Amino acid sequence: MNVKFSERAKNIQQSAIRAKLFDDIEIISFAAGNPEANLFPLDELAPLAHDVILDKGKEALQYSNTEGILPLREHIAYKRMKTYGVDTTPDKITMLSGAQEGIELLTKIFINEGDYIACENPSYSGLYSAARTYSPKYIGIPMDEDGMKIDALEKALASNSRIKMIYTIPDYQNPTGIVMSDDRRQKLADLAAKYKIPVIEDRPYGDLYYEGNLHPTIRSFDKEGWVIMLGSFSKILCPGFRIGWASAEKPILDKLLIAKQAVNLQPGTLDQFIVLEYLKQYDIDKHIEKLRKVYKSKRDAALYSIEVCFPKEIKYNKPKGGFFIWMELNQEINTSELLVDAVNSVKVDFVPGTGFFANGGGEHFLRLNFSVNDPTNIKKGLQRLGALLQNKYY
Amino acid sequence: MNVKFSERAKNIQQSAIRAKLFDDIEIISFAAGNPEANLFPLDELAPLAHDVILDKGKEALQYSNTEGILPLREHIAYKRMKTYGVDTTPDKITMLSGAQEGIELLTKIFINEGDYIACENPSYSGLYSAARTYSPKYIGIPMDEDGMKIDALEKALASNSRIKMIYTIPDYQNPTGIVMSDDRRQKLADLAAKYKIPVIEDRPYGDLYYEGNLHPTIRSFDKEGWVIMLGSFSKILCPGFRIGWASAEKPILDKLLIAKQAVNLQPGTLDQFIVLEYLKQYDIDKHIEKLRKVYKSKRDAALYSIEVCFPKEIKYNKPKGGFFIWMELNQEINTSELLVDAVNSVKVDFVPGTGFFANGGGEHFLRLNFSVNDPTNIKKGLQRLGALLQNKYY
Repeated sequence: MNVKFSERAKNIQQSAIRAKLFDDIEIISFAAGNPEANLFPLDELAPLAHDVILDKGKEALQYSNTEGILPLREHIAYKRMKTYGVDTTPDKITMLSGAQEGIELLTKIFINEGDYIACENPSYSGLYSAARTYSPKYIGIPMDEDGMKIDALEKALASNSRIKMIYTIPDYQNPTGIVMSDDRRQKLADLAAKYKIPVIEDRPYGDLYYEGNLHPTIRSFDKEGWVIMLGSFSKILCPGFRIGWASAEKPILDKLLIAKQAVNLQPGTLDQFIVLEYLKQYDIDKHIEKLRKVYKSKRDAALYSIEVCFPKEIKYNKPKGGFFIWMELNQEINTSELLVDAVNSVKVDFVPGTGFFANGGGEHFLRLNFSVNDPTNIKKGLQRLGALLQNKYY
Repeated sequence: MNVKFSERAKNIQQSAIRAKLFDDIEIISFAAGNPEANLFPLDELAPLAHDVILDKGKEALQYSNTEGILPLREHIAYKRMKTYGVDTTPDKITMLSGAQEGIELLTKIFINEGDYIACENPSYSGLYSAARTYSPKYIGIPMDEDGMKIDALEKALASNSRIKMIYTIPDYQNPTGIVMSDDRRQKLADLAAKYKIPVIEDRPYGDLYYEGNLHPTIRSFDKEGWVIMLGSFSKILCPGFRIGWASAEKPILDKLLIAKQAVNLQPGTLDQFIVLEYLKQYDIDKHIEKLRKVYKSKRDAALYSIEVCFPKEIKYNKPKGGFFIWMELNQEINTSELLVDAVNSVKVDFVPGTGFFANGGGEHFLRLNFSVNDPTNIKKGLQRLGALLQNKYY
């Protein structure tokens, strides 16, 4: 069978991270970016799903509009987005089948073949897989401990008129764990307005800080409407709902909405009704507080194990939030080869660095997740990986 | 704010049908294609959703794999697809966030700009909106009472090597209500193999026949793997889940799967668990039997009203299943103008024909849905529309 695919289908390839997610049950995995399933509020959600179906099922199980049900968009506009420092209205919110969809649709509406996306270097590999169909090029903007270097971004924007989109994860960035400073958030919003370039602010981890405070969103500094914030319930409630949202101004949101409609009509109706009911009946910020405590203890376990068990030469960040530790090994160590060794010899996995770099490089970096395992397994797994590195590589 | 969108974003336009769906509550609408919400098995689904979350929530609310949970794909492969005459295995099934998504993704992987899609003329307007981003051209294949004319299709395939995809709704086609004969299904499968062109068999209405029997799917005649069947729970269970599936051979399914992963990672996990539990605990074929009875009575009410109240000159089909009656008025009547008149003067709406024709035409056609309203309202609404036509147009 010799199937002829389209030219663009040749660009459609497997993502390294997803491919590895569900491989081997025995190993202690530091690869995935899943939230901890023991933290899902099942006792609250079960009766609430029951009642939603019984009392409102004729609506909750029917087709709905593309932008999402109004009371949920109201709640997000007037409560969630307010918490994030944004003064907005429900007509400037559209629900998505997960925030990942927002990346794909925004690339679709902004990027012509050969246009550039400016993003942190390294950045989320899901950006590259979502955008691949539309054949963008990338300008990786360097980071320091305050996030994307805004002066480097401005230089890039000034010298390259084909940059058509800026993508950033300002909070506990994937993969580096770095937080963008509030000052740079302001500057980035201003720069977007100056150059009239849309900024995608991807915000899956913003609520999950273990030190310091909630940071104001870039969208909260956005006076002229060039910032699109992608919000998500995946990490603060449950990912199985596939419910995210975009907060943006009307000219962009309208286009996004029509693109979504053509692709899959609407986000799940029942999922939206259940999430809405949860938000109405429970205090999600209290729930998030609990998540922060648990994830903090996991982060601390991971940092402690690395401190104690890993070779001292290895550089890594100490993330103030989110799910990831980013690690730089000796230049000579290829982490894709190390991964094979680690899985085989000590039954531990992680994500090698290369997948996070749009334009190559990163062979001696790796990303460790600490949200999935409990502290005991985190210690056990990192002890093993540390010992392997000590004994064989350093 | 002067936002610069991509070239392809200019092709992204509002679908006429969806735009009208949720407009005006007062009017009796024959426009939408929704299933009847009173038929959703809420009493069964409510406790089942409760138990799924409580007992299996750690999985059911977590991220899942892109292709969908295995037990659901097993059920679909060994039970549903068997009912549809297809002998297949779970690895040849992938779950989708609704079947509409399948149309978009398959166009993405098969169509280069300027390639042709062959489809029934007229066809589902959601095909055109899903495909629009990829700038296909269309060859509309004429139909008779046995569906798409296969000799006309073969002529088209023989003379145009840029036809890269065939799209068909063989059962109770949207908008015409026509059923493709079993003989033509076989011929279409053979033709696809001969010309090595993939066939998308979109099958939302196949179970909803009110006369005759279930027809074997085109996929059931597919010996060489060129047919992709899109299945849906939207019309036989509830659309609010956004759960559909594709049945296809591995080379195509693998590409489809990776394309889906990049776009939105996976279909909703909870939705899949609930649908699976329903399929395990209840007999969906019994449920479908009940649906058939109710929809038959609606169809009969609609046909009776048209027979009695509409001008005799009007031609229309008597659908043996599905949701739609397709109507041809006098050449001089523009149904888009008629729609404005009907909404204003008799508070009735429908979908004008033009949106179903890829290459123009259809101004004097219209589509009437009969699945949404109860027989009383169907009669009331069609009486009004018939009177308007009698008094003012004929």
